[in-house]
Amino acid sequence: MSVAQVTSFKLTLSYDGTAYSGWQAQADGNTIQQWLAAAIKSVVGSQVQVTGSGRTDAGVHALGQVASFSVPTRIAAGEMQNAINANLPGDIRVLAAEEVAASFCAQRSATSKRYVYVLQDGPLPDVIRQRYCWFLRGTLDVAAMQQAAGYLVGELDFASFQAAGSERASTVRHVSRLQVERRANEHRGTTPDDIVAEIAANGFLYRMVRNIVGTLADVGLGKQPPDWVADVLAACDRDAAGRTAPPQGLFLAEVNYN
Amino acid sequence: MSVAQVTSFKLTLSYDGTAYSGWQAQADGNTIQQWLAAAIKSVVGSQVQVTGSGRTDAGVHALGQVASFSVPTRIAAGEMQNAINANLPGDIRVLAAEEVAASFCAQRSATSKRYVYVLQDGPLPDVIRQRYCWFLRGTLDVAAMQQAAGYLVGELDFASFQAAGSERASTVRHVSRLQVERRANEHRGTTPDDIVAEIAANGFLYRMVRNIVGTLADVGLGKQPPDWVADVLAACDRDAAGRTAPPQGLFLAEVNYN
Repeated sequence: MSVAQVTSFKLTLSYDGTAYSGWQAQADGNTIQQWLAAAIKSVVGSQVQVTGSGRTDAGVHALGQVASFSVPTRIAAGEMQNAINANLPGDIRVLAAEEVAASFCAQRSATSKRYVYVLQDGPLPDVIRQRYCWFLRGTLDVAAMQQAAGYLVGELDFASFQAAGSERASTVRHVSRLQVERRANEHRGTTPDDIVAEIAANGFLYRMVRNIVGTLADVGLGKQPPDWVADVLAACDRDAAGRTAPPQGLFLAEVNYN
Repeated sequence: MSVAQVTSFKLTLSYDGTAYSGWQAQADGNTIQQWLAAAIKSVVGSQVQVTGSGRTDAGVHALGQVASFSVPTRIAAGEMQNAINANLPGDIRVLAAEEVAASFCAQRSATSKRYVYVLQDGPLPDVIRQRYCWFLRGTLDVAAMQQAAGYLVGELDFASFQAAGSERASTVRHVSRLQVERRANEHRGTTPDDIVAEIAANGFLYRMVRNIVGTLADVGLGKQPPDWVADVLAACDRDAAGRTAPPQGLFLAEVNYN
């Protein structure tokens, strides 16, 4: 048997999650993972296993999802990128491709991730941005949200922010950054402001970002004081936290590797 | 016959044009004007004539379209706004409603309009913004576009920028502002920059903004020098100008009245 020619790749992907059933392969076939595997199959002629850094839910977007896979052939990274893009729907794009060691795994090798969640507040929703933000009627108190966010930075047990039914050995994660800020939409005339939450951690529990944002939103709307979030955290109980923010405001912004 | 109770309204509207066949009523029924008339009929019980400040093409968006109509009843403006919004699809919103004199006409009374056109440049399109910008591969020379834009400011004959087949008594319009600037998309990670063109005039010929932007894009891409635009303008001939920019980058931002 000859030495197999194998090339391993790391892809950085962006997608508009609106039309898809999330990242993870499902029976309906309409997932990012399956579209990507089909595009790679069109290029190399065989089905390959594609691993993502983690799943994204239906409707969640990605600015920098990372995937890894190996193909039984030699092919340059730039050529692979262009060939995959030529076989993908227009709302999924490979932004970068690089050759990596066969040991690289988009999921296990990841050391941290950064998510962005976009909210908008005001009297009426911004019709242009409905698929890309969570609109809340009224005015969010961003200073209160920032104060509440402060309780969630550090190495902490985020059990209260884990979706029910998920099973992880440990619910401790290290959130290195959680920042909330208001950004005026200057060139959009009458449209509401963006309130952008950025959160970076060494790992995330299932729906952790959406549960944190939903909880911060309750603080922003004045339903709860900022220090309520400390109680929520301490409870280690999903029922203690606020609602789950909807998927369309969430963007997987970046996955980091050593 | 009793004195009729008539109330006349001015509405300011925002819509995502993606799913619609433009403003103007058409046989398919899927136009903003028709959806708006149907919503008003749901409120007042009778069909009313709705006049827009002007038509927008299929796929073109509005941040501040203005419409006018009269109804055979007394109803407060805020109540009218809420009732219409309750009967409109979620991607069309009435941002403001005010009672006006019966003589007010959204089209004839308009004194100027402002449009925004969003381009993006870079190696790969921003999948999140496909419905809301025109992506051009490469790097746009915004300084050259600004220089070219300078030839189009003032009271000038814009015949070269009028879509073929349109008939206007005069093709002279006064462009009071035409500005092109690059705006970095800071919180979007790997996504391309926006190049935003803003144009204000006392009136616009059919497809004038899209024809101007298409022409400026040819300059930005280095296909033509900036002073070519002066020649295009002087030719008073549509064939002299550049291509027509696609609809999805165009936003009707504002309509002004005295």
